[in-house]
Amino acid sequence: MIVQAENLRKYVSAVLQTVGLPVQDSDIVAESLVSANLRGVDSHGVTRLPIYVKRLKLGVANPDPQVKVVEESDATLLIDGDDGMGQVVGTRAIRLGIEKARKSGAVFIGVKRSTHFGTGAFFVQQGVNADLVTYAMSNAPATMAPWGGIQPYIGTNPYAFGVPVGKHKPIILDMATSVVARGKIIMAAQKGEEIPLGWAIDKEGRPTTDAAAALEGSVLPFGGPKGYAISLMIDIMSGVLTGAGFGPHINNIYGDFDKPQNVGHFFQLVDINRFMPADLFKQRIDQMIDEIKSALRAAGTDEIFLPGEIEFRVERQRLEQGIPLSREVYVDIKKVGEECGVSINDYESAILA
Amino acid sequence: MIVQAENLRKYVSAVLQTVGLPVQDSDIVAESLVSANLRGVDSHGVTRLPIYVKRLKLGVANPDPQVKVVEESDATLLIDGDDGMGQVVGTRAIRLGIEKARKSGAVFIGVKRSTHFGTGAFFVQQGVNADLVTYAMSNAPATMAPWGGIQPYIGTNPYAFGVPVGKHKPIILDMATSVVARGKIIMAAQKGEEIPLGWAIDKEGRPTTDAAAALEGSVLPFGGPKGYAISLMIDIMSGVLTGAGFGPHINNIYGDFDKPQNVGHFFQLVDINRFMPADLFKQRIDQMIDEIKSALRAAGTDEIFLPGEIEFRVERQRLEQGIPLSREVYVDIKKVGEECGVSINDYESAILA
Repeated sequence: MIVQAENLRKYVSAVLQTVGLPVQDSDIVAESLVSANLRGVDSHGVTRLPIYVKRLKLGVANPDPQVKVVEESDATLLIDGDDGMGQVVGTRAIRLGIEKARKSGAVFIGVKRSTHFGTGAFFVQQGVNADLVTYAMSNAPATMAPWGGIQPYIGTNPYAFGVPVGKHKPIILDMATSVVARGKIIMAAQKGEEIPLGWAIDKEGRPTTDAAAALEGSVLPFGGPKGYAISLMIDIMSGVLTGAGFGPHINNIYGDFDKPQNVGHFFQLVDINRFMPADLFKQRIDQMIDEIKSALRAAGTDEIFLPGEIEFRVERQRLEQGIPLSREVYVDIKKVGEECGVSINDYESAILA
Repeated sequence: MIVQAENLRKYVSAVLQTVGLPVQDSDIVAESLVSANLRGVDSHGVTRLPIYVKRLKLGVANPDPQVKVVEESDATLLIDGDDGMGQVVGTRAIRLGIEKARKSGAVFIGVKRSTHFGTGAFFVQQGVNADLVTYAMSNAPATMAPWGGIQPYIGTNPYAFGVPVGKHKPIILDMATSVVARGKIIMAAQKGEEIPLGWAIDKEGRPTTDAAAALEGSVLPFGGPKGYAISLMIDIMSGVLTGAGFGPHINNIYGDFDKPQNVGHFFQLVDINRFMPADLFKQRIDQMIDEIKSALRAAGTDEIFLPGEIEFRVERQRLEQGIPLSREVYVDIKKVGEECGVSINDYESAILA
């Protein structure tokens, strides 16, 4: 199926409104999901709508949270998300953070009692649009063992970073701290395909190419012990420091239906004007990008990319040509709409093919 | 040779004093170098003394810099290092940062016009001793190609992170963003040994096991494109944002003897008390450490380590038993002392064996 972004966004927002989200919060979540699809990050796109609706209906995610600043200083904010949707809680945090970074020069924001926040890029882009260097991180349910261990302890905690630039597209890094997203292993298991060695270990800690065995074991961190250490840093800042869950004490979005997730996030925003005039900074970062793009390439490499550049190209293409959804995902999101009394047919111009 | 840490420190400081460093600044550099040896990070230990002395004598490093705060806000500092020794400039930055983080809750510090700063752990420990979560990063001369490229563009930019804990040793992460330190490839080349595939590419961009060919090519980032992106982030914050050199526009400590390095650093300090009482934070981080240490281990793994834990053990051992130095390093540091009119024999209790 090929669907049109704007109508898909309206459909997702309409479904979320039926389970208690205010219009503007529904729009935020819909924007995050459809933006992920547009950028080619389909694992964090509308495929998440059914589980979000399920948790909202069960009351383990709060459709209308009282997001509160519980600690504050010139350069820090601690925010209680009241079990709201991560995209809603995170967007409030970023908005408060933009204000504070402009006033104080920079801000560290901890968030507790939140839920799955979608992509880190979604928040980083909000900061970059306000001309701030922005970091977004989150912890996540345990799927990776500590280095040398075999039991999942930390999540594939995402690390995102964005930089305003001049004439180019912004640099937007958004990565899981695992070698690959766990979703790729789930897909291989469903298809009965093998996975490459190095993606995961089985429950005894042995390297495995068996996708099903990998799902019972642990995903491996990117870059071995170094990537594990960065994932641990993210959990310390998002979980331990904020008062959210950490390690295995975060509830699984797909498994723990009796309690909120208690995910924690960690954002940082920096005003470039406190270091040099923004115009000069943008000249310098443009120079860096120009130099990297024109560097000598290895045989077989057609082009050198900056972080986020490929996603911008996919986005441009999908804005023009529509978002391709698998039949499974289309059926899933259609069904959840029907259960909520929203017919995807009312948004039928969403379907291009 | 086995040398005793305290006397080695005095010797290094005495040598640096002869080339114009004030006593307290000499002590800081000596402390950084010997601390690296104590922690087993010999590549950043006293082996650096001869090149430091050479650059100070040539006037491309400034022995008595006027380190100045050139931009300041509640949550940011931009510091001009006046081409001083990185350890001296960085220590002033951290001291100012500790003060500001206590006042404002957190601080981002950019440093320009600095030089090789030794280990990131040295600064992170200073922040952690003041009960602050601390990050230390620096750019470095180009030795890594952008992902897909074959010409070195970014350095093996170090990333360091430290966390105060309760009953355990602090978590101190300090890593290069390359697969391995370039020094290991230099050593292999000197011995005529092969290097493992995956450490480096040759100047045509081909994976190589030939150490000499690797030195003419590029070191590879840890974790492929993800590690490259993190190294790039460090250069953007340390170099582009501060006004220091970036990419290939940083001068090489071992090659460019006609001009200062213009290295940039980037530090972050966060007051944990602005998020929760420090005692509670320390209980939580201790719980995390206890859980990781007691996790089920893979076959062949005797113990699971936290970042920095192995270095603390080496340090305890080397404080008791002395620091082993290779004959080459011993001869080099003895010779540079002689050239400065300082005899290592006057510190002979430094030599244990």
